[in-house]
Amino acid sequence: MSGPWVAFLSDYGLADEFVGVCHGVIARRCPRARVIDLTHQVPRHDVRAGALALAAALPYLPAGVALAVVDPGVGAPRRALALATARDGRVLVGPDNGLLLPAAERFGGVARAFDIGESRERLEPLSRTFHGRDLFAPVAAAVAAGVQLEALGVAIDPRSLAVLRRPSARVREGRLEAHVERVDGFGNLALDAGAEHLSQLALAPGEELAVTSATARISARLCATFADVAAGEALLYEDSTGALAVALNRGSAAQALGGVLAGTEISLERSP
Amino acid sequence: MSGPWVAFLSDYGLADEFVGVCHGVIARRCPRARVIDLTHQVPRHDVRAGALALAAALPYLPAGVALAVVDPGVGAPRRALALATARDGRVLVGPDNGLLLPAAERFGGVARAFDIGESRERLEPLSRTFHGRDLFAPVAAAVAAGVQLEALGVAIDPRSLAVLRRPSARVREGRLEAHVERVDGFGNLALDAGAEHLSQLALAPGEELAVTSATARISARLCATFADVAAGEALLYEDSTGALAVALNRGSAAQALGGVLAGTEISLERSP
Amino acid sequence: MSGPWVAFLSDYGLADEFVGVCHGVIARRCPRARVIDLTHQVPRHDVRAGALALAAALPYLPAGVALAVVDPGVGAPRRALALATARDGRVLVGPDNGLLLPAAERFGGVARAFDIGESRERLEPLSRTFHGRDLFAPVAAAVAAGVQLEALGVAIDPRSLAVLRRPSARVREGRLEAHVERVDGFGNLALDAGAEHLSQLALAPGEELAVTSATARISARLCATFADVAAGEALLYEDSTGALAVALNRGSAAQALGGVLAGTEISLERSP
Repeated sequence: MSGPWVAFLSDYGLADEFVGVCHGVIARRCPRARVIDLTHQVPRHDVRAGALALAAALPYLPAGVALAVVDPGVGAPRRALALATARDGRVLVGPDNGLLLPAAERFGGVARAFDIGESRERLEPLSRTFHGRDLFAPVAAAVAAGVQLEALGVAIDPRSLAVLRRPSARVREGRLEAHVERVDGFGNLALDAGAEHLSQLALAPGEELAVTSATARISARLCATFADVAAGEALLYEDSTGALAVALNRGSAAQALGGVLAGTEISLERSP
Repeated sequence: MSGPWVAFLSDYGLADEFVGVCHGVIARRCPRARVIDLTHQVPRHDVRAGALALAAALPYLPAGVALAVVDPGVGAPRRALALATARDGRVLVGPDNGLLLPAAERFGGVARAFDIGESRERLEPLSRTFHGRDLFAPVAAAVAAGVQLEALGVAIDPRSLAVLRRPSARVREGRLEAHVERVDGFGNLALDAGAEHLSQLALAPGEELAVTSATARISARLCATFADVAAGEALLYEDSTGALAVALNRGSAAQALGGVLAGTEISLERSP
Repeated sequence: MSGPWVAFLSDYGLADEFVGVCHGVIARRCPRARVIDLTHQVPRHDVRAGALALAAALPYLPAGVALAVVDPGVGAPRRALALATARDGRVLVGPDNGLLLPAAERFGGVARAFDIGESRERLEPLSRTFHGRDLFAPVAAAVAAGVQLEALGVAIDPRSLAVLRRPSARVREGRLEAHVERVDGFGNLALDAGAEHLSQLALAPGEELAVTSATARISARLCATFADVAAGEALLYEDSTGALAVALNRGSAAQALGGVLAGTEISLERSP
């Protein structure tokens, strides 16, 4: 009754039957498995957004397998992976494009890595475009069913795994130059910056900042939560994952800053 | 295998991992629990729409816990609640903003109320913006696991709970003045009126009515179901929750009436 | 722990609580049942799209019941069905409008058919607009609970079932005239054509084709997978269901061809 648990994240969307088909494949291979859908609306092919959502969510889930498919290279010779984490016995299954690594870091990094591209668990014929169904879901279900990773693929060197390049925030001349890591469904902007950057700026709670994108500038107040500012006003706060974030109370900061996307550079400085 | 059951409704949307994270929190605290997602696409911060959806759905679900989070006041000092209903042993968990009360009324009203804001079940540190994850989901899971409400919070007076103000329809001079309570995904409009208003108007099945919003007027026929009118024609009918509703067969009544939203006043009278 | 399994597909969308309510009805009637949502975003009233999604998905699911509701005729005197397939012991529950038959064909066709419109399992009063909740879900749950079909309805002649008319592709004067069967969430176009049509055209891998809709023409290369063409370029390939499909790598073929919908005629010929 208590699992085994499979967390499932993808960019498949919910308009088609793709997600349901992967659930079916898991149910056939490991009927006892219980699947938790994290989200299937990762922006299509946005490996970085998928990696961040996976890393943010997994620590709140019970130990088990994570199946993650954001895979612009499907059909090309990218490797397919099953990774065992150093802590907590998690197994992460998905493509070798950096998607799995930020989540692995939350559990002490990758202890063992396996190339599962030729796994005997995969469905035949292997399609060229739907490895979620034909390769990743069957392998994740086999792990849930108790199959050892050694039996699912070929051991590879964890240092050979593809890594996402990540921009990094810095403070220069009293200004925080950061990047938008994620835009959530409400238009809130999570930055690649945290409490350590704030302390470099020596800001006090309640202080007003100028937040500048390439096309717009708004004022935001440093505070703890949405209710600390009026409707329509902006705030800078520590979000529920610990990142600095910019939001508009009952509005969209992404829109207010001119239609900001993940990856956009944003600068913050004390209002003059 | 037969639960315990947790019904889950929110305005989190499905684009982010928020809903999946709450599922994970529940699974960790009460692995036996089975979660039924009612909807997570309540319009953001629309407490009234969430309350109506919860009240419409719960009578069709098995007895258990309901977790509902539409919470514009998160981070402000609104109370957090667990409510026991008078009939059927339901427990409702969510913010003290009126969201839970229409559902409680379906089960005889609130028998006992508890402030769970300081519950020892909550995750620490408590974030300021994601009480679904840190407070409401853990408490709902603890209820599912069999913990008594007395152990989860402080008893409060049910008469002290925040209540939603609701408009109310009335018949005046042969005209029904009603309000749109909900616009569903198809553009059908559920009104705050029912069979008792129809009988005041003394309408007969098949009669034609003028339906008027602030910006548009359409003709609708009083009938039992969509198939009673041609494609593109409007009808007034009793919907599957018992409310009077206006719809366009294979179209959107909301659009036909000029872009109607929940809360809009609509009047209906016999066509001249 | 291993079911019984209920696959669930509809055009209800996820904005309202309709899908969750059907889950609740199933849970009350058969608490052991485990429901796999295939998709609930079939375009509203598009019986054909629903039928194709159901047929594509079911072979990947464990044996069990399928509940499918795309039902423009709800409230009109269309029949309600439970069908037993010739192979694999599947039961399909839904309206008699052709929705279930392509899926039945994947399992040897319909062995036995039952009209369940007056089933004693249905909820009373039966609403006129929500037979998913009041009729189809209760009957599907009863099947999952082990009730025999004979006890759920009246046997009818499988040859009397409503059938979808389907267009069919053909090759004429070196040109493939096909129809778009499905537009997926990415704008990929699945055609009502397969490998047999390609061989009639005697095309070689890598060859370039002209793809023409009523309003636009694009060039596409015959190849195996997205990664075989550059970003923004089009390809013709066999998709994961075995259909010929047109796609744009990291773009939308539906858009590139002028906003193509399901049912649109598309022609393909060797580029001059």
